[in-house]
Amino acid sequence: MHPLDTAIALTSAAPGQFSGQTSPAYWNMVGPFGGCTAAQLLQAVLQHPDCQGEPVSLTVHFAAAQQDGPFTIQATPARTNRSTQHWILALLQPGADGQPQLVTTAMAVTAQRRKTWSASDQPMPRVAPPSAYAQAQVAGDFKPPWFSRYEMRPIEGAIPQKWDGADHGSLTQLWLRDAPARALDFPALAAMADVFFPRVWLRRARLVPAGTVALTVYFHADSALLAATGKGHVLAQARGQGYRNGFFDHNAQLWSEAGDLLATSHQVVYFKE
Amino acid sequence: MHPLDTAIALTSAAPGQFSGQTSPAYWNMVGPFGGCTAAQLLQAVLQHPDCQGEPVSLTVHFAAAQQDGPFTIQATPARTNRSTQHWILALLQPGADGQPQLVTTAMAVTAQRRKTWSASDQPMPRVAPPSAYAQAQVAGDFKPPWFSRYEMRPIEGAIPQKWDGADHGSLTQLWLRDAPARALDFPALAAMADVFFPRVWLRRARLVPAGTVALTVYFHADSALLAATGKGHVLAQARGQGYRNGFFDHNAQLWSEAGDLLATSHQVVYFKE
Repeated sequence: MHPLDTAIALTSAAPGQFSGQTSPAYWNMVGPFGGCTAAQLLQAVLQHPDCQGEPVSLTVHFAAAQQDGPFTIQATPARTNRSTQHWILALLQPGADGQPQLVTTAMAVTAQRRKTWSASDQPMPRVAPPSAYAQAQVAGDFKPPWFSRYEMRPIEGAIPQKWDGADHGSLTQLWLRDAPARALDFPALAAMADVFFPRVWLRRARLVPAGTVALTVYFHADSALLAATGKGHVLAQARGQGYRNGFFDHNAQLWSEAGDLLATSHQVVYFKE
Repeated sequence: MHPLDTAIALTSAAPGQFSGQTSPAYWNMVGPFGGCTAAQLLQAVLQHPDCQGEPVSLTVHFAAAQQDGPFTIQATPARTNRSTQHWILALLQPGADGQPQLVTTAMAVTAQRRKTWSASDQPMPRVAPPSAYAQAQVAGDFKPPWFSRYEMRPIEGAIPQKWDGADHGSLTQLWLRDAPARALDFPALAAMADVFFPRVWLRRARLVPAGTVALTVYFHADSALLAATGKGHVLAQARGQGYRNGFFDHNAQLWSEAGDLLATSHQVVYFKE
């Protein structure tokens, strides 16, 4: 079983109630890799018996530190329209007093995708194929387990090898796929939208404390396009926007190797100093 | 009283329960201007007696068509940390059966902003001052009331004057402020993040049915920066990303006339054909 499938395996004892377990394979420094949490939340939507259509949008708010261990996801189809469905999600864990505590909140939209005029104003950057780039070397100070769950081939803006305060800009481009390779689906794509290390580390070459507060993924790919992408590489790009008084944001794009825009993403991140 | 202040006036009869009324002044074609709804939801957070800090993020999901008339907003501080607070919001209106129906869902983050290293990777585009550009002429087919609540001075990518199928790209830049002028605050800034007509109209010069499904605003400005901006103009920019099978997204930036990045925004929009 692929580690991602193990990580997003959920059991359901009651309608809209899902039980899961944090994944050691996708552990980050002091909590789970946020992309894995996003994938678990999306998986709850997709496993829900009332789910209609395919994911269009997912927004995850990392409200509190998640502990290692079991968790519960509540997935509620708050509104079902003719062709769109709006979801409210909550991830809970037992608190110090044993009572369920809200750890993560999320909202999602699923929809029937119908063939329409389509286009992209985010053409894939012109880069060489994945084989032209070496696999990422992790920095000595930053080697969380989840990092090994991806084959990453940085093109530009790899994690700084020296924390020397140099300005590296904030653009990262890399070829990316699950390790071991796994056919792309919506949870995997949601997770990939969070692979970018904090832009402030790249921008300042300083390993300051930082953590994602809120993450959004818009899915442009439907299941047919994901199937066509298969186990191929994904070109992932992120760029910072504003950094001010403790928070910064970035926007990101993910393309198939064939050049189709699969997803766009944004996140706002807390940082210190 | 400024029309925006009238529009976002909420009364609270119980903790976290707010009552408001849709605004004829900010009416769109078949429902309220989504920016006004975003401002009302944010106002509920700001008026909540337990609110800590200032807005960092707001995500609004337009789950169902909102009717003209009264509404209720439920604002819940789902998690309060040392320096961040996570909010869950719901806007309800009586349904056909008189029972409250969920119309809009939202999540927000407020936080204590502390002075840190700050920078921008979205420098303001080099454009002439507001007085150099004429006020927007509305297209014959598109003149909703809310459009008159803003002074808009398009620089590039104004709403097409002819629906002739020409490709205008998807970039819009305009100088923007409330009409009449009003000192900028968080609800006003949230509303401004939604002033962009659907990118698909500009991209195709076709007036196809379109409606925002989900909108996110990240606030880079704190109240001190908003106060410094005052009644000045805001430079607003939006650009489409992907358009595929019934949905497209855009990202947007808003700067003060002094060149400070005030907010970034993203939305995913349903479109037909």
